[in-house]
Amino acid sequence: MDVCVIKIGGNIIDDTQKLDAFLRDLLVLNAPFILIHGGGKIATKTAESLGIPTQMVEGRRITTEPMRDLVTMVYGGLVNKTIVAKLQSIGINAIGLSGADAKVVQAVKRPVKDIDYGFVGDVTSVNSVFLQLLLSQGLCPVLAPLSFDVQYGILNTNADTIAAETAKALSKLANVKLVYCFEKKGVLLDVNNEDSVLPFIDKLKYAELKAANLVFEGMIPKIDNAFAAIDAGVKEVIICQAEEIKNALLHNSSGTKIIPHV
Amino acid sequence: MDVCVIKIGGNIIDDTQKLDAFLRDLLVLNAPFILIHGGGKIATKTAESLGIPTQMVEGRRITTEPMRDLVTMVYGGLVNKTIVAKLQSIGINAIGLSGADAKVVQAVKRPVKDIDYGFVGDVTSVNSVFLQLLLSQGLCPVLAPLSFDVQYGILNTNADTIAAETAKALSKLANVKLVYCFEKKGVLLDVNNEDSVLPFIDKLKYAELKAANLVFEGMIPKIDNAFAAIDAGVKEVIICQAEEIKNALLHNSSGTKIIPHV
Repeated sequence: MDVCVIKIGGNIIDDTQKLDAFLRDLLVLNAPFILIHGGGKIATKTAESLGIPTQMVEGRRITTEPMRDLVTMVYGGLVNKTIVAKLQSIGINAIGLSGADAKVVQAVKRPVKDIDYGFVGDVTSVNSVFLQLLLSQGLCPVLAPLSFDVQYGILNTNADTIAAETAKALSKLANVKLVYCFEKKGVLLDVNNEDSVLPFIDKLKYAELKAANLVFEGMIPKIDNAFAAIDAGVKEVIICQAEEIKNALLHNSSGTKIIPHV
Repeated sequence: MDVCVIKIGGNIIDDTQKLDAFLRDLLVLNAPFILIHGGGKIATKTAESLGIPTQMVEGRRITTEPMRDLVTMVYGGLVNKTIVAKLQSIGINAIGLSGADAKVVQAVKRPVKDIDYGFVGDVTSVNSVFLQLLLSQGLCPVLAPLSFDVQYGILNTNADTIAAETAKALSKLANVKLVYCFEKKGVLLDVNNEDSVLPFIDKLKYAELKAANLVFEGMIPKIDNAFAAIDAGVKEVIICQAEEIKNALLHNSSGTKIIPHV
């Protein structure tokens, strides 16, 4: 079985027209898929309206208990169910899940070292067997960025990480493509030039680029994570602009493909 | 297969200690179950904090678009996922669903006659085949009071109705008991006397009680709906206090059983 694991972020979630267009683009994919969504600005806006303070420690956002309740509401409720309802309305049989549902994404609360991040989860396992059962029934799982810890309950969790761990776990059962949709058209050689997209990167190319200081710093963790996913069995990682997903997946004419070697 | 369809309301959902005790009581049931939850005061409180006005027409609450978003957040996110996480933490493999997820509860937006109720759903079908698949996997579905209409999306829907329609649909595939947990100990002959619980009502008894004006008016729709469920194939409807669910289900020593005939 071929499966796409697709991650979308706030830039798409916050824009109804872009989101609608993106979801319609998914109709033409030739493989079953799992969608992982991030949060978007609606969480920050709702927190402000509810008077829940954003607590920062050394520049990092902390998930206090009221903030955990908030992200459970906004990510697990509003954002997740809105996407599910939109997919259903165009004929894609979606099912929205948090990490607690069928223990799809289990985690441990991040241990306190220098910083106490609060109710934040580090993923320990993904229930790929259950996800595969859903896929085999023609369902499209939609995962919120929330994991589950048996002791602490729902935990706020990075959507990129959930996407990577889901792709890795599923790669034991299927041929998995992991797709990160973001603002840029792909991995750029020049961060200010959208036409400088690298169409593919393998390990050799990546080593050359890093040695020549040609990789934009913000991209390094994303590419490192992509190779980690490939080392764990994922066939291909694609980094592309959400608006270009059809071109990236069907026509190889957009985005960057990260592959073990050419 | 025997299945219990259990509805809980705000009086349990709003009280963490009561909710925890109730969920632990479910551990000893001998049958798989589906839990349907109502809303609770948290929705009203959150709406007030967010400045979403409660709109009433002729004494009825209207679901405006901001209110629909709010119940999607609170019922589909916070309440649903909190219950799922609590069940998971005591070893019950729960999965939370809105009506849109796998089209579990489909509905039509209530037609406008005298009153425009807004985004409120009248249930048209329940995906009992999918619910049975989940039950067969050892999962416990937890349904939020939200249905789905392909044209209007997520709709606010009465939890009692979702419970009844779920029980009816599943009764084609399994032996179903429908359990309504509420504040009182059961159907009372005297609404002010908790010791006046009727242990059972069949159609004959109900006709007698109604003729003699002995049924408390507020109970009549509940009992009528219970008989409608029985006419549709549900084996038994139990009305009991949430705190008494073990006694009602395992020991027949609490609550009212509504059955076709003795």
